[in-house]
Amino acid sequence: MKGIQEFPKHYCGVFGVFDHPNAAEIAYYGLYALQHRGQESAGIVTADGSTFHSHREMGLVPQVFKGNALAELKGRNAIGHTRYSTTGASHVQNVQPLIVDCNRGKIAIAHNGNLTNAAILREELEAGGNIFQTTIDSEIILHLLARPNLTADSNPLLETIRRIQGAFSLVMLTEKEMIGVRDPHGFRPLSLGKLDGKWVLSSESCAFDLIQAEFVRDVRPGEIVIIDEKGMRSMDAFPDQKRRAFCIFEYVYFSRPDSKIAGVNVYDSRIQMGRQLAREHAIEADMVVPVPDSGNYAALGYSLESGIPYHMAFVRNHYVGRSFLQPSQTTRSLDVRVKLNLVSDLVKGKRVIIVDDSIVRGTTSQSRIKILKEAGAEAVHVLISCPPHKFSCVYGIDFPDRSKLLAANASPEEICQHLGADSIGYLSQEGMVKATNQPEEAFCMACYNGDYPVAYESNVDKEIIERRTVDSVSFGDLLDKEASQSKLI
Amino acid sequence: MKGIQEFPKHYCGVFGVFDHPNAAEIAYYGLYALQHRGQESAGIVTADGSTFHSHREMGLVPQVFKGNALAELKGRNAIGHTRYSTTGASHVQNVQPLIVDCNRGKIAIAHNGNLTNAAILREELEAGGNIFQTTIDSEIILHLLARPNLTADSNPLLETIRRIQGAFSLVMLTEKEMIGVRDPHGFRPLSLGKLDGKWVLSSESCAFDLIQAEFVRDVRPGEIVIIDEKGMRSMDAFPDQKRRAFCIFEYVYFSRPDSKIAGVNVYDSRIQMGRQLAREHAIEADMVVPVPDSGNYAALGYSLESGIPYHMAFVRNHYVGRSFLQPSQTTRSLDVRVKLNLVSDLVKGKRVIIVDDSIVRGTTSQSRIKILKEAGAEAVHVLISCPPHKFSCVYGIDFPDRSKLLAANASPEEICQHLGADSIGYLSQEGMVKATNQPEEAFCMACYNGDYPVAYESNVDKEIIERRTVDSVSFGDLLDKEASQSKLI
Amino acid sequence: MKGIQEFPKHYCGVFGVFDHPNAAEIAYYGLYALQHRGQESAGIVTADGSTFHSHREMGLVPQVFKGNALAELKGRNAIGHTRYSTTGASHVQNVQPLIVDCNRGKIAIAHNGNLTNAAILREELEAGGNIFQTTIDSEIILHLLARPNLTADSNPLLETIRRIQGAFSLVMLTEKEMIGVRDPHGFRPLSLGKLDGKWVLSSESCAFDLIQAEFVRDVRPGEIVIIDEKGMRSMDAFPDQKRRAFCIFEYVYFSRPDSKIAGVNVYDSRIQMGRQLAREHAIEADMVVPVPDSGNYAALGYSLESGIPYHMAFVRNHYVGRSFLQPSQTTRSLDVRVKLNLVSDLVKGKRVIIVDDSIVRGTTSQSRIKILKEAGAEAVHVLISCPPHKFSCVYGIDFPDRSKLLAANASPEEICQHLGADSIGYLSQEGMVKATNQPEEAFCMACYNGDYPVAYESNVDKEIIERRTVDSVSFGDLLDKEASQSKLI
Amino acid sequence: MKGIQEFPKHYCGVFGVFDHPNAAEIAYYGLYALQHRGQESAGIVTADGSTFHSHREMGLVPQVFKGNALAELKGRNAIGHTRYSTTGASHVQNVQPLIVDCNRGKIAIAHNGNLTNAAILREELEAGGNIFQTTIDSEIILHLLARPNLTADSNPLLETIRRIQGAFSLVMLTEKEMIGVRDPHGFRPLSLGKLDGKWVLSSESCAFDLIQAEFVRDVRPGEIVIIDEKGMRSMDAFPDQKRRAFCIFEYVYFSRPDSKIAGVNVYDSRIQMGRQLAREHAIEADMVVPVPDSGNYAALGYSLESGIPYHMAFVRNHYVGRSFLQPSQTTRSLDVRVKLNLVSDLVKGKRVIIVDDSIVRGTTSQSRIKILKEAGAEAVHVLISCPPHKFSCVYGIDFPDRSKLLAANASPEEICQHLGADSIGYLSQEGMVKATNQPEEAFCMACYNGDYPVAYESNVDKEIIERRTVDSVSFGDLLDKEASQSKLI
Repeated sequence: MKGIQEFPKHYCGVFGVFDHPNAAEIAYYGLYALQHRGQESAGIVTADGSTFHSHREMGLVPQVFKGNALAELKGRNAIGHTRYSTTGASHVQNVQPLIVDCNRGKIAIAHNGNLTNAAILREELEAGGNIFQTTIDSEIILHLLARPNLTADSNPLLETIRRIQGAFSLVMLTEKEMIGVRDPHGFRPLSLGKLDGKWVLSSESCAFDLIQAEFVRDVRPGEIVIIDEKGMRSMDAFPDQKRRAFCIFEYVYFSRPDSKIAGVNVYDSRIQMGRQLAREHAIEADMVVPVPDSGNYAALGYSLESGIPYHMAFVRNHYVGRSFLQPSQTTRSLDVRVKLNLVSDLVKGKRVIIVDDSIVRGTTSQSRIKILKEAGAEAVHVLISCPPHKFSCVYGIDFPDRSKLLAANASPEEICQHLGADSIGYLSQEGMVKATNQPEEAFCMACYNGDYPVAYESNVDKEIIERRTVDSVSFGDLLDKEASQSKLI
Repeated sequence: MKGIQEFPKHYCGVFGVFDHPNAAEIAYYGLYALQHRGQESAGIVTADGSTFHSHREMGLVPQVFKGNALAELKGRNAIGHTRYSTTGASHVQNVQPLIVDCNRGKIAIAHNGNLTNAAILREELEAGGNIFQTTIDSEIILHLLARPNLTADSNPLLETIRRIQGAFSLVMLTEKEMIGVRDPHGFRPLSLGKLDGKWVLSSESCAFDLIQAEFVRDVRPGEIVIIDEKGMRSMDAFPDQKRRAFCIFEYVYFSRPDSKIAGVNVYDSRIQMGRQLAREHAIEADMVVPVPDSGNYAALGYSLESGIPYHMAFVRNHYVGRSFLQPSQTTRSLDVRVKLNLVSDLVKGKRVIIVDDSIVRGTTSQSRIKILKEAGAEAVHVLISCPPHKFSCVYGIDFPDRSKLLAANASPEEICQHLGADSIGYLSQEGMVKATNQPEEAFCMACYNGDYPVAYESNVDKEIIERRTVDSVSFGDLLDKEASQSKLI
Repeated sequence: MKGIQEFPKHYCGVFGVFDHPNAAEIAYYGLYALQHRGQESAGIVTADGSTFHSHREMGLVPQVFKGNALAELKGRNAIGHTRYSTTGASHVQNVQPLIVDCNRGKIAIAHNGNLTNAAILREELEAGGNIFQTTIDSEIILHLLARPNLTADSNPLLETIRRIQGAFSLVMLTEKEMIGVRDPHGFRPLSLGKLDGKWVLSSESCAFDLIQAEFVRDVRPGEIVIIDEKGMRSMDAFPDQKRRAFCIFEYVYFSRPDSKIAGVNVYDSRIQMGRQLAREHAIEADMVVPVPDSGNYAALGYSLESGIPYHMAFVRNHYVGRSFLQPSQTTRSLDVRVKLNLVSDLVKGKRVIIVDDSIVRGTTSQSRIKILKEAGAEAVHVLISCPPHKFSCVYGIDFPDRSKLLAANASPEEICQHLGADSIGYLSQEGMVKATNQPEEAFCMACYNGDYPVAYESNVDKEIIERRTVDSVSFGDLLDKEASQSKLI
Repeated sequence: MKGIQEFPKHYCGVFGVFDHPNAAEIAYYGLYALQHRGQESAGIVTADGSTFHSHREMGLVPQVFKGNALAELKGRNAIGHTRYSTTGASHVQNVQPLIVDCNRGKIAIAHNGNLTNAAILREELEAGGNIFQTTIDSEIILHLLARPNLTADSNPLLETIRRIQGAFSLVMLTEKEMIGVRDPHGFRPLSLGKLDGKWVLSSESCAFDLIQAEFVRDVRPGEIVIIDEKGMRSMDAFPDQKRRAFCIFEYVYFSRPDSKIAGVNVYDSRIQMGRQLAREHAIEADMVVPVPDSGNYAALGYSLESGIPYHMAFVRNHYVGRSFLQPSQTTRSLDVRVKLNLVSDLVKGKRVIIVDDSIVRGTTSQSRIKILKEAGAEAVHVLISCPPHKFSCVYGIDFPDRSKLLAANASPEEICQHLGADSIGYLSQEGMVKATNQPEEAFCMACYNGDYPVAYESNVDKEIIERRTVDSVSFGDLLDKEASQSKLI
C-alpha cells in the first residue's frame, strides 16, 4: 500500500484549444483538471498570429498562474503542459511547452511520454551542428521539425513523427495551426473534444467535463490531427503499425476515475478490478478498507462483489500537500501518520482487508499494517488491484530501478512476511485485462511482464544530457594550429 | 449539499504540551491534525521559564511554520492555535495565541468558542482604563486575569472563569504552568492526553493519534486543569451547573471522523446517522452517492443499512485548495465543477440518492443536481444527515444570518422544488441524537431548534470592536479648559 | 571612519497629516523622506472617523507598502512611523504606530525617543492590572491616556505627558484629532508644516520638501499641538522648564542635510563643522577625502576653508543595500570593499586627509587606512567632525556600550596608532557648538561629556520587557487553597 | 540633467574566473561590482569538468543569488553576466549566460554589446535548420560555434568571431577552457586580471579591486584569449583591422569612476572634462552644483579649475531603488523630488551652475531648474560634460530614437529656453577627447557626430525576433499533399 502520491511521479499532462476567445483561461482549467499528471511545473503558450506569449514556472497550476499571468496570455490558440515532480530546483529551463523560432515560424510543443531513441537522435543532431538548450527529449522533436526540406515533396512533420520512437502524445502550436499527435502504439492517452464549436485536445477526458466541452473521441494511435481555420484534418501516419500498447497502469492508477479512455470509464474499470480481486481472492473478513485514494475504487468493487462491508478506516488529512515540511529535528517519523490517520475503534478485534493499487518499496505498507495491528485488528489481509510490479518503465513513468522494486526481488510470500500481513494477494494479469473489457493485445504491460513493445536504448530517460560520448572541444588546441599568431603567455 | 468547506468556517483548534523536550514540534503536529478547525492563521507560543517565544501568521500550519520557524521556538512548554478563515487580510494582530505581560508574569492564551457577554465585559474593562489591541473576545480573558486582587483570598483564575459566559475551551500558558479550561456547558471539545509521560491538551483526540500520545479523557465541562512541575491538578469550577450543551454539529460535521468525543467515535456516529437516515427515509434507488467529504460516512451508513450500493460518483480534485484563484474574466462559473467532477457514465439512467450533512444557501446543491440530471440520472433524491438548520449559532460557529439560511425560510417541499430534486429528506432530531448514543440533554441543538442554552447579547461576534457606545475623546476640548495656556492658532 | 550605516541605528521617524483627501499617500511620501531615521519597519494608520485602518510590517517603506496597501488605508487623517533596525525577526508586534481601543475611543501613536522612567511606569501600571502586549515603552503612554478621570477637571493628555520622562516626539491620532507633542527638553526634532492648507507634522522638514508642503515652524520643546476640524490649538505643557537639550548629533550625523532644525540648515552646520575643523587642525595635505556619505559635507567645509582640493576618492556602490548577503563561505572579508572602492591612482604618492563624523569600534577605519596606504598614499590624516564619543545615549540612539566605544577606552594618540593613521584630530566641543550657531545650553551632548540632562533608570532601553522584579503567578498554588475542590491527579 | 539612472539602460557586464576554488563566489562579487552595467537580471554558470551548473534570474545580483544559490554552483571555473533593465517580465529565457550542449560539448556565453549583422545571420541559420529559443543576438554565436567543420583545418572559434560584426566583448566557458574575446573595434571594455595566480576577466577593472585581484591589462580589440590548464594563449584575430572605436560615453557616464580603461582612470577623465568645461565655458557664479551622481566629478573638475565653490545642493535619497513604486493615485508627480531634494537655503539669492553628463528628453532637467528658481536661485546655468547627443547607438546602448533626443531636434539656445535656464553649455568634442588623453581615432563618437564605424542593418536591436520575413509553415497544407491518407473532418 503506497498511500498517497508516493510513487510513479514521472508523468505529464498536455492540453490545447484552438480559435477560442478565452484560450488561455480554458487551457488553465484544462491543466487544472490534469494536475494529477504532474505537479512540478506548468506552462501555457498562446498564439496570436505570429506572436507567441508564454508563462512557464515551477509549481502547481494555480501557483504558476497566480496574479494576472493569464491576462497577459493573449491570443485565441493555446497549449499547456503540466509536468511531473522531480527533485532539484534548477530545471526551469526544462519547463514545457517549449517554444522556438525557426525557418517554419514559431512552434511550441507539449509532450507526454518518453522517446526511446532520444540519445541516438540527439547525437546525430549535434553532429549536424544543432545546439541543445534543455535536457529533455522533447527538444529533439523541434530540431527535427526545423530541418530544411531535402526534396520538394518533403513533409517535415511526417518525417519527424516517423523518425522518433517510443511514447509520445503531443500537442503543438504553429503560427496557424494546432497539431495533435499520438505515437503508433498509443502508449499515452490523448482525447479530442469540442467546446463552443472549437476543437480542444487533452490528455484525459476529465478536463473536458470541467470546461464543459463535449468529448468527441480519442486521438487514435499513430494519428496526426491538424486543426486550422479550415477545420480539422486527420491522417494515419503509421498505416502498417497494428500492435497497440496502451499503458494499462493508466486504468489501474494514473488516470483520473472520471476519465474515459478507449470507451472505458476508468472508475468502472477499477470497480471491476476490485470485483475480480474478490473472485480471485475470497477472504473471510469483517471489512474492506481502501488505502486512500489509490485503493478507493478497487476496495469498493471488492465490497460490492463479496458483500463484505466497505469502511474508510483511514482518514485522509486534506491539508497535507506539497508544502508540508517535516521538521528536521523530529524524534519519530510521522510521515505515515500525518497523511492518513486510522479510526482505531473501527478495526479493533476485526479481520481487515486493505486494498491498494501497488506496493513499491514496502516501507509505508509495513508501517500501516503495524498501525492496524496495534489498534487491535485481528487479521490484516493485503490485496493489490494489479499484478506485482517487476520491471521498470521506459515509456514515461518514473518507477524506481528494478533493484528497488520489492516484487522484482521477493516472492509474494516473502513480501507478506516482510510486511507483517496475514496474507497478500495480487490481481492476475488476466483479471486486470478482463476488467478493462479489452483484449490483452491492446496494452503495454511491460512493468508486469517485461515484454517491452518498443526496443529502447539502455539508458532511456527524460533527462538525457549526461550521455556525452564525443570529446569536448579545446579551442586552445585549435588556436595553436594558427601557429603564426597564437602565443602562450 | 454544500460540498467542500463552503460553510461554517468560524472555528478554532487549540493545543498544548507541557514539559516536553520537543514542545514546539509536538505543537506543530498537533495543529496540523487540527487544521480542519481553522485555516486562516496559526500560531505557537513556547515558554522557556520567563521567556516566551512566539510565531503567529496568516496561513495554513505548514505555511506559517516553514523555514526554521520552529527551531526558534525554544522551551519545554508550548500552546498552539489554529483559526477559522475570514475575509480581510489585515487581521494579523488578531492571530492567537495572544501573549501578554502583566503583574502575574507572562500569560499566553488560545481560545476556541465565543463569549456571549464579551461586549459588556469589554465596556466595563475600558471604563476601568484598560486598552484593547485586538478585536477578539479572548483578549478580555487576559484583562480579567491581570486585575489586582481585591482580597487576600482572591483567586483571579476562578474569578475570571466565572465572570465570562458562553463557549470557551481554553489552553493557557503562564511562566510555570499550562492550564486547560472548558466552559460549564462544554460547548466545544477539549481532550487530555499523555505523551512520553507528559500532559498534552487538544481540541480533538485525533491530534493524539498523530503525535502518538495516549488519549486519557475529555476535560469535563466546567473543569479547570492546571499542569505544572508537580503534576496535574483539577477542579470543578461550576459544581452547581448541571445542564450540558455540547455542540452536536461537531458529530455531524466539524470534528474529524477519527476523533472520539464523550466516548463516542465520530466516524461511528456518522455511520449511525446514515443508518438512521435509511430507517427514516427508505427510497428505491440504484446507488447512494456522498457529497465528498462531508457526506462520505452518512452515505456509507445509508448503504450498509439499506443494501443500496455505495458509489463515489463525485470525484474530488485534490489540488483545489486555498490557493485556487478563479480568473476574473471567466465566462462561466466553474466553481462547482472545479472541486468535484461527476463520473457521468455511472449515473446514466440510474436513480441516485445523494447524501450530505447540510444545505445552507442551496446554490451549490442546485448546480450539482442539475449536473446529475444532465448526465442522465433518472431520479435524484437528496438526504441530509441532520435536521434543517434554521437558527444561527452564537457559540463559535459562523453560520450565515437566519435570513440567508434556506431552511429558515422555506419548507422541505419548497427546498426540494428549488433544488430541482425528486425528493428531499432530513434526519430527525431524535434520530440524530440517537446516533450519538447520548441523551438529548447532553447537547446544544440551538441551530436546529432555537433553544439557546446560554443567554446572549444580541450582537455576539468574535470581532466585537465595532460596538462603541461612549463618545470618543476630544483632547482639544479638554485643553480649552486650561484657559490660561491653550491658544487656537 | 565608520563608513555607511554602520552604527547608531536605534532611531525613528514620525509623520502625520490631518484632513487631507490623500492622507495615506502623503504619509507614505513623508515616511519615504524619513527612511534614514529607521529601516527596520514602517507603518501607517489612517482614521476615517471612528474606523481606523492600519498597515505595519517589517521592511523598508516601499517594501512595506507595495501592492495596493495604500489604497486600503482610507480616511483623511494619517500618521506614520519608520523604525530603526535591530536584529531579530520576531518583533512584528512592536511595529508602530500602535493602535488601541479604550474608553476614550481609538488612539494611535507614533513615538520617536526613549522614556527614561519606562520601567517604573510599567511596573506601576501592571500592578494596577494593565496588560502589555508589546515590549516598547510607547505602549505605556497609551495605558496612561486610557486611565479613568480621577476628578472632573482631569486632563488625561496633560497628566500623561507630565508623567512620562525622557525623550519623546509624539504624533498621535484620535477619532477626531491629530496631536503632536515634544518633550520639555526637546531631545528629538518635530516640525510643523502646511500642505494645501492642511496641517502636517514630521520629524524633519525634508519631508515637507518632498510633499511640497510649506515649513511653518518647529514644534517647541514641551509644546502640545492639537489639530482638529476647528484648526490647531497649542499649549506649553511645561512652562517652568527652561533647560533645552536638543541632540547635537542630529546636526552631526542623523538628520538629513536638507532638513532645517531650530532655524539652522543641517547642510550648512556640517559645512561649518568642516571649516571649524580646518581652523582647529591645519594639515599640509594634497587632498581632502570624505568617507561617503557621512563625511561628505564636513570634508567639503574643510576644503573650502583650507583650500586643499576636495576629492571623492572613495566610490560608493549604490547597489549595496539591506539585501546584501555576504556568502558564508567567503575566504576574505570583503565587507569594507563592497560598499566603497578606492580610486587608487588618485591617492598614489599623495598626502590624504579623510574626514568622517565618528569612529566607533575602529575596525572599519583601520581597513580603510590600510587600503589607502596600500594604494600608495604618502600620509593619511584622520579628522572627525565632532568630539570623541565616550558615553552611551539613553534618549533614543543605539550607541554600543561604553566598553565597546573606542574613545571611551583610548586616548586620541592610542586611537591613531591603533588605526595606523599618521595623525588624528577631533573637532572640539566648542567648535561643534559654534558650527550650529546656537548656545551650548541648547544641546544634549551627553555622549561626548557624560552630562545627562534627564536622570534615568540604570537600564533604559526601548525594549523593557526583560525587567521583571515581581514573582510570576502560580494559579495551581492558588487553586490548592480552594481545598475542598482541587485535587492533584 | 537626467538625474539618476534615467537613461541609457541597455547594457551589460561580463565576468569570468578560471581554476579557482571559490569560482562562484568570486563571480558573484565580480558581478556585484558590475551591477551598474545592468540591473534587470543576473546569472552565473560554473563548470565542473563536463557538468555545468547555472543560476539565472531576473533581479539585482544579491536578490538573484540570495539563499544558498551560490553553494550549488560547484566547479572551479565560472562566468557571469549582469543585464540591462527593460520593461516586460517575461524575458526569463533571455537571461545570460546562455548555456548549450552541442557537438563540441557544453558551451556557456556572456556577451556585452550588439551584433550589427544579427538578423542576417539568424535568417541564414534558420534557413539551415537551426532553432532559436531566445530573442537575443548572443544565441547566434553559439549556433555558429556548433557548426560542423567543413575542412580538417576549420577553426570554428575563429570562423565565428570573424563572421559576427558589431560590438562584442565575450566571456565564454567550455568544458576545459575560459575564453575572452573583444571585437576588432573594441567598442566595449574587457579587462584581464590575476587573482591568487588565476586568470580573471571583467568588463571593468573596478571588479578586480573588489575581489582584490591584480589588474594585468585590457584585452585588446580583436584579441582572443584562451585560458586552460596550460595557461593563457592569446591571438590577434583581426591583424588587418586598424581602426579602433571605443565608446567614449564609457568615460563620460557608463563606466565606474574607479575603473581604468586604456590606461586612463575614469575618475580622472571626468575631472578633466570638468576642468575643460571651465576653460570652454567661464561663468560668473557662486557655486557649482552636480546632479548626483552623474555630474559629481565633472562639477568638481569645474570647481577645481574655476575656483568657484563646489556644493552638493541636491541631496540624494539613498533608499530610492528599483523597488520604489509610485502610488498610482498620486495627485502630483513626485518623481523628481523623491530621488533628489534641494537644500533650498543654500541656493537662495545665488548664481548656480549645475553640471550633468547629458540631457535626453529634458523633462527632468526642466523640473530641477524650476525647483532651483523657486528656491530663490538668482541664475541657473546648465553645463553638460560632453557634446549634445544627436544620434542613437547601434552598438549596445539603449538611447531613445532620434525623434526623442532633445538635441537632435533643437539648438542649444532652444534647449536653454525650453529648460528655463539662464544659459547652457556643452563640452566640445575636442575637449571631451582631450580629457581622455587619447587620439580622436581611438573612439566611437557616433551618438554625437553620426559617424558609425561599423555598418549596420537598419533595425539593429538586442531583441531581434520580430523580424520574420519568410512565411510560417502550414503543416496542414503539406498534409493535404499526402492525398490518399489525409482527410478533412
